[in-house]
Amino acid sequence: MPLPDLLARPHHDGSALYVSNAAPALGETVTVRVRVPDVFAIDELHVRQVIDGEPRFADAAVTHRGDGETWWSAQVACHNPVTNYRFIIRGEHTGYLWLNGTGLHERDVPDAADFRLVTYAAPPAWAADAVVYQVFPDRFARSAAADDRPVPDWAVPARWDDPVDTTTPDATGAQLFGGDLDGVREHLDHLVRLGVNVLYLTPFFPARSNHRYDASSFTRVDPVLGGDDAMVRLVREAHERGIRVMGDLTTNHTGAGHEWFAAAQADPAAPQRDYYYFADDGSYAAWLGVPSLPKLDHRSAGLQRELFDGPDSVTQRWLTGPDSLDGWRVDVANMTGRFGAIDVNHAVARHMRAAMLAADPDALLVGEHCHDHASDAQGDGWHGVMNYSGFTRPVWTWLRDKGFAPNFLGSPLMVPRLGGGLVADTMTEFGALVPWRSRTHSFNLVGSHDTTRIRTLVGDDPAGVIVAAALLFTMPGIPMFTYGDEIGMPGTFGEDGRRPMPWDESRWDHTLLAAYLELIAARHQHGALREGGLRWVHADDDALVFLRESADESVLVHVARQAHEPIRIDSALLPGIDGGTLVGGDSITASTDVIDVRADGPTYGLWSWKAVGHGEAR
Amino acid sequence: MPLPDLLARPHHDGSALYVSNAAPALGETVTVRVRVPDVFAIDELHVRQVIDGEPRFADAAVTHRGDGETWWSAQVACHNPVTNYRFIIRGEHTGYLWLNGTGLHERDVPDAADFRLVTYAAPPAWAADAVVYQVFPDRFARSAAADDRPVPDWAVPARWDDPVDTTTPDATGAQLFGGDLDGVREHLDHLVRLGVNVLYLTPFFPARSNHRYDASSFTRVDPVLGGDDAMVRLVREAHERGIRVMGDLTTNHTGAGHEWFAAAQADPAAPQRDYYYFADDGSYAAWLGVPSLPKLDHRSAGLQRELFDGPDSVTQRWLTGPDSLDGWRVDVANMTGRFGAIDVNHAVARHMRAAMLAADPDALLVGEHCHDHASDAQGDGWHGVMNYSGFTRPVWTWLRDKGFAPNFLGSPLMVPRLGGGLVADTMTEFGALVPWRSRTHSFNLVGSHDTTRIRTLVGDDPAGVIVAAALLFTMPGIPMFTYGDEIGMPGTFGEDGRRPMPWDESRWDHTLLAAYLELIAARHQHGALREGGLRWVHADDDALVFLRESADESVLVHVARQAHEPIRIDSALLPGIDGGTLVGGDSITASTDVIDVRADGPTYGLWSWKAVGHGEAR
Repeated sequence: MPLPDLLARPHHDGSALYVSNAAPALGETVTVRVRVPDVFAIDELHVRQVIDGEPRFADAAVTHRGDGETWWSAQVACHNPVTNYRFIIRGEHTGYLWLNGTGLHERDVPDAADFRLVTYAAPPAWAADAVVYQVFPDRFARSAAADDRPVPDWAVPARWDDPVDTTTPDATGAQLFGGDLDGVREHLDHLVRLGVNVLYLTPFFPARSNHRYDASSFTRVDPVLGGDDAMVRLVREAHERGIRVMGDLTTNHTGAGHEWFAAAQADPAAPQRDYYYFADDGSYAAWLGVPSLPKLDHRSAGLQRELFDGPDSVTQRWLTGPDSLDGWRVDVANMTGRFGAIDVNHAVARHMRAAMLAADPDALLVGEHCHDHASDAQGDGWHGVMNYSGFTRPVWTWLRDKGFAPNFLGSPLMVPRLGGGLVADTMTEFGALVPWRSRTHSFNLVGSHDTTRIRTLVGDDPAGVIVAAALLFTMPGIPMFTYGDEIGMPGTFGEDGRRPMPWDESRWDHTLLAAYLELIAARHQHGALREGGLRWVHADDDALVFLRESADESVLVHVARQAHEPIRIDSALLPGIDGGTLVGGDSITASTDVIDVRADGPTYGLWSWKAVGHGEAR
Repeated sequence: MPLPDLLARPHHDGSALYVSNAAPALGETVTVRVRVPDVFAIDELHVRQVIDGEPRFADAAVTHRGDGETWWSAQVACHNPVTNYRFIIRGEHTGYLWLNGTGLHERDVPDAADFRLVTYAAPPAWAADAVVYQVFPDRFARSAAADDRPVPDWAVPARWDDPVDTTTPDATGAQLFGGDLDGVREHLDHLVRLGVNVLYLTPFFPARSNHRYDASSFTRVDPVLGGDDAMVRLVREAHERGIRVMGDLTTNHTGAGHEWFAAAQADPAAPQRDYYYFADDGSYAAWLGVPSLPKLDHRSAGLQRELFDGPDSVTQRWLTGPDSLDGWRVDVANMTGRFGAIDVNHAVARHMRAAMLAADPDALLVGEHCHDHASDAQGDGWHGVMNYSGFTRPVWTWLRDKGFAPNFLGSPLMVPRLGGGLVADTMTEFGALVPWRSRTHSFNLVGSHDTTRIRTLVGDDPAGVIVAAALLFTMPGIPMFTYGDEIGMPGTFGEDGRRPMPWDESRWDHTLLAAYLELIAARHQHGALREGGLRWVHADDDALVFLRESADESVLVHVARQAHEPIRIDSALLPGIDGGTLVGGDSITASTDVIDVRADGPTYGLWSWKAVGHGEAR
């Protein structure tokens, strides 16, 4: 018998509606719940968890019935730091049906997509409400003081309206527009207006490039950006305005100009020598073989102390004190600590997490990861990752009109435009491989300083950017966007995506900006968008429809990449929806009988109502 | 455009036909090949591998065309101990198609099902040709000397024809039929006749039960089995007859009667105290909470020395010397070294592997694993596992008429009978999660001393046993079967599956035995069945059809669980097949035009021919 429509299927995810304690301690027992629409008649439900490597089953019991649904509850013991579990169901549709993070399965499946509980220290509470704005300091805003600063020897100065030099990697890295931290501070109004509450700065350490991923020190702020004092001013004012600030640390490598590397290279007996992978002939390992970026050897106890241990360590010093950072984004987290037969990646991530807990338990740690991050995001190290594989790329493949060029995240082939069904499946699969907590503490993004601008990627169609933003601000995960996306800045891959922010508002796309404002406001106003579960309702070539649901509220989200036939959903499947209202976009209407979802072109809609039955089920 | 039939799709697996070096050293480069039927027109093919956590692409080039196929080759650098790779294809069917261990995918997929190369020391060469016979020493054969041995205090003696006592766990464990090692030795003729070349003995250590998984020592053979001398006699004679012998070591726990545990319990200051998980109150952790099986704490350096280090260690002493064992099966490998926040499972497996390499580089190491073994079988520790999840259970779900009872491997629900499509998908998915080497060095089995007998599981239908055996001896993996399966011994779950072997041949099912003899002989005679790749040809409810292919030979295998409509395959898709011949069963005929596959009831067929094009492609 074929499985019924998505909304008629049993559902569980890691959100509070289904899990009694998202931050259990080792040894604690957690109640997990499955909601089963009455149209999907079932007779039995059990939970299977793995304890010390061995599966064990426990019965689930019905704990609530009503409003067309039956809620089952079972207990999961958090005997191990990561506990994976799933459900087995007997009912009308099969005698044997597994429910895991990728849905229902009529045959045995591996554990990879099991649901997961983790007992590691919980991420900071503020992260659930975060809306992150990425700033590349050289390109956001330039204070008056920048005019008086000497140009460093590596730099080629440019005027704010100059085109980005994309001719060679050396030229692109050397071009200095002179944006600085006081410039950022002077434009915090813009962030406040947007509803942004986290400012994420790409590296601010001294370096020999405008991107500063080739740090020459981790102990001070680049004077070209205004130095340490400018950072204090920026953080203080940001905090005063309710904005947290995250830094960007390169744990995989330093610049060849780094003080550690200079000492190591000057003297083979120097204590810093073992911070790097030096061969006997003086050659050394480097990021993708680029000599200016020598790779760090995390087996070195000395390096570990420098980076992680004690209040003066790199990780801790910037998180300590009254005007300190609120978290780190870690560059190339996927390669950190990995080199040939050596793989101490998880040890590094755990060490950094422990260092952050020591310095500031309220700090967030997000690792860069551009492909499958499943094994690296189980919750022991990074709180989350930059979710390129489970969000960015699926969104791109759905919205890009002609497939997108390879390069970053890419393949040697043009990646095609895919239908919504495949896109939803990709999001679901990558999402299922990590604990819900890791998924919801990962950065969702539709572009970054490393990628083509979303405006360009969707074919210079503002409507396409709005559709992308609708997904960005409504799906599980921390929305992160790059300065200028909100005003329609274009840019092909790489440097061209790092154009200086235009502050002449006549050059802004105000339609786009209005959509960003509406969507960010909706996220702030509707808790279900921030902390709710995720149930897919419909996914076809041109339309994605899903639910975000908390104990109090349900929000139905519709995004369409182009016009499609109307979608009609029986209102009986979503009790109470007729008492709700449109809270964003305009593509949904709901009556007592039917929910009507329409698109005459790229569009979105958010429909919110008071949840029915959720509170009783908890 | 929908994907074409299985045989018309691009294919790669880890066998020698597609991988130039199955045992590369760290730093070596390996050529990997993809065969693409000409009916599946493609324009580009690239390989993607992960290096130090970062994906990288390389072009593939056409290296051979002919016989309706095009072979593409690419280079993979074994920079890390485990290198995962997959292919991306652009062609007629899509602009973007991934090929990994689970087949073709039109969207991004995680890395879990990537192909894998491993640089760890290769398993012993003999394992590729192994056919393993499992003997439970108390139940296989009883020598005359057994009559003179005193009955141990824990035992309740039984006569050979007594029924197995299945009343209580204590009663079942105490019932002693008196089988012994000289009894096994006296019946090596039976193994030789079968074509068995590996004898795997469940534990032979002194214990307080007939199963001996509660060892009281690891340094000597139970006198009840004939003691150390009987073991020497057995191994010597087995070796003389071309049969290797594997032991069974319980690394997760000992018996409460073990000499280590006695010392540990008697004196909290004893060096053995930290071999176990004692609490301050004297209580201790035990396997599934059973007090007679105290769990070992592998963090103990003393325990590590006892088990692994040096020629006198448990692991090494039995593998050293002229009449020594040829490998270990490890009991409860999945739980070993795992307890709450502690997980040193992989360290234990690596340590044991290193110990075996030191004692006897030609020894095989197979871990028991009853569920998803993917993360534990990446090649660093166990050479392979008991493949319950990727072989046993799928076969059972296909052949069992009424679903099978839960208990071992089970769920609280009856597991249903599933169609061949779901069964093949399950095998493919679990197989794809480990390196090809781990898959082919895992034990395939259709039952063990822990399970219902296959005869009983298929509803007491000998034809069903033959179908199960046809899969057992033709699929990738080391076939292992339990004493008596070949003569049709019945038995419901547990002890009842451990009935004493009847040596009165009038009680044997000789039809079944003939099928075992034919299938084992076919495996020995046809290298493709032992070392070939695996290509699925057809999978529907009642029929499974697949190819095993080496450089020299192709074998088409058909198994049917019941009568089905004839399957016809265009001979042009399998060049040379009309020059081949039936080498087992009778369900296949092939002409220049068509391959005809028929079943009037449960049946099988093996059709072998000289491979066309494979040699040139390599």
